[in-house]
Amino acid sequence: MGCSLRRKVKVITDAMGGDFAPFEVIKGALLALAENKNLEIVLVGRFEEIKKELGTENKRITIERAEEVIEMDEPPTQAIKSKLRSSIVIGTRMVREGKGDAFVSAGNTGAVVAASLLNIGRIKGISRPAIGIVIPTPTRPVVLIDAGANADCKPENLYHFALLGKVYIQSLHSVSQPKIGLLNIGEEKGKGNELTKEAYKLLESSNLNFIGNIEGGEIFQGKADVVVCDGFTGNVILKVAEGLAETLMAEVKEAVGSTLFSKIGGLLVKPSFKKLAQRLSYDEYGGAKLLGINGVVVISHGKSNAKAIKNAIQFSYETVKNEVVAKIKEELKTFN
Amino acid sequence: MGCSLRRKVKVITDAMGGDFAPFEVIKGALLALAENKNLEIVLVGRFEEIKKELGTENKRITIERAEEVIEMDEPPTQAIKSKLRSSIVIGTRMVREGKGDAFVSAGNTGAVVAASLLNIGRIKGISRPAIGIVIPTPTRPVVLIDAGANADCKPENLYHFALLGKVYIQSLHSVSQPKIGLLNIGEEKGKGNELTKEAYKLLESSNLNFIGNIEGGEIFQGKADVVVCDGFTGNVILKVAEGLAETLMAEVKEAVGSTLFSKIGGLLVKPSFKKLAQRLSYDEYGGAKLLGINGVVVISHGKSNAKAIKNAIQFSYETVKNEVVAKIKEELKTFN
Repeated sequence: MGCSLRRKVKVITDAMGGDFAPFEVIKGALLALAENKNLEIVLVGRFEEIKKELGTENKRITIERAEEVIEMDEPPTQAIKSKLRSSIVIGTRMVREGKGDAFVSAGNTGAVVAASLLNIGRIKGISRPAIGIVIPTPTRPVVLIDAGANADCKPENLYHFALLGKVYIQSLHSVSQPKIGLLNIGEEKGKGNELTKEAYKLLESSNLNFIGNIEGGEIFQGKADVVVCDGFTGNVILKVAEGLAETLMAEVKEAVGSTLFSKIGGLLVKPSFKKLAQRLSYDEYGGAKLLGINGVVVISHGKSNAKAIKNAIQFSYETVKNEVVAKIKEELKTFN
Repeated sequence: MGCSLRRKVKVITDAMGGDFAPFEVIKGALLALAENKNLEIVLVGRFEEIKKELGTENKRITIERAEEVIEMDEPPTQAIKSKLRSSIVIGTRMVREGKGDAFVSAGNTGAVVAASLLNIGRIKGISRPAIGIVIPTPTRPVVLIDAGANADCKPENLYHFALLGKVYIQSLHSVSQPKIGLLNIGEEKGKGNELTKEAYKLLESSNLNFIGNIEGGEIFQGKADVVVCDGFTGNVILKVAEGLAETLMAEVKEAVGSTLFSKIGGLLVKPSFKKLAQRLSYDEYGGAKLLGINGVVVISHGKSNAKAIKNAIQFSYETVKNEVVAKIKEELKTFN
């Protein structure tokens, strides 16, 4: 595995994925190349469209033809079966065939998950892959897993998510024994729904550093390094946090503009606010990582701009460089 | 029913419930009495403790002895069976026996729900009672239901929550056809987990004004008047929103204090910020309403201070005055 660090990392990028594709994706890819000399990019998508946007030649960027596009609202399983010439299907296949080290897409999340499962496959011993997402908290980053890959889960799945989250946070930071929390309603054992009650028992009897239940509000206090939940709840949490942060920042701005005095004050606090808004912006985070798949797959926000895409590509580069997939396999040996 | 409006409303208040009981509860009860001349209060709890805190006599306040206390972390069903002399068990019984018009508690939520079910009972035709909570959005209040009474739900339960939420928002505001949204991951029909997929079909075929799926972030945009979900998800949403709002406001404050310029600016924006913080504070909202019970039960936040208790009591008064329970029964006739 060691030599993978010295050679260049090739990231297959879905040029057709996301609300602002292909323009922002291509712009993001070029930004990523400019920043990182060890990177090569394959843009997958409609050849003519990409060619037109790409402009001048860049020897570290190539185009792979994929004439079909899976739309954001298409039913995933059906879409990946009927659109075999889509960027998502071809991109994930290229990873399996070793034609690239990672796949990055801001497209239909469900389709990326389904295509990754079908074309790249699960890591042996992991019942279900899950989306791990890094949440910014004032003290440290926290991994929320599953953030939306599995709407219905079994207790065993949640146990596997904990394992995946553990290795993931370890690969991002040097945390020796990451604290694992189970997202639940109420702190005490025995609280929650049927799923969390059973998952609690599994986590408690494992050799993970399980610290018990974590309530919704405690995620942002950085009480646990990894917060485990089913994909329905995880996705709701993400969307609530995003929506509320937007609403609150807008209200703060409005409050600032409401009187002459506060307007003057607003000008003075502006630089500090800008820094905060930047820290909270999802553009800064490299997208969601699909964990438990036998390869590196990064799902970027559907609203990704060039900067978000650039970060997602850079993030997939780090994940390859840090050999996260190999580390998950290694970790599984300790547990199974 | 009309004469209930002219006589005084008697609110049974759990003097032992919440983290700051009995002191803050009693203070809140006295504040409520001072504000509302049509109110009478019965404080249920440990006689000596209440007597001591109460001080001077008030002819609109009486004490009902309940020497046992159900702690915040006790398993609800067990607690209400073993502690028959607790304020929660006695308080809910008093409502059934007509010794009061409403019960207000900042105590163990699960115990209040279980005791209300056992002692007051469900409204006929409602499969499960649910907690409805008013969420402040910049445009208008939105009711989230269920906010925590039922950790595991069936599709039919969600349909009943929609009915309860509809009548509730109608009783609070003059909305003629409240928009009902189903909390889900993804906008399109067919998205979600097994529960929401089935609930979607039920809501779609009902004669409610069902507007489809609502994503987590859209709650705060006031897209729907009523947002329906299972109690696990609803409770997580509440806690996430509360925790994130706290964290963000703290960060805004820190950002303001980070440079000399922004400090001066901070002083100028302070009054506007204070107004915003006040609007977002749960003290301002009258607690959560347990809907579907054949009586008025209000559950206040465990961290309630006197102001929050005062508002919860006032809120229970409004609910009695607006005959919400009778209206739910009336509405059910149209649907069953």
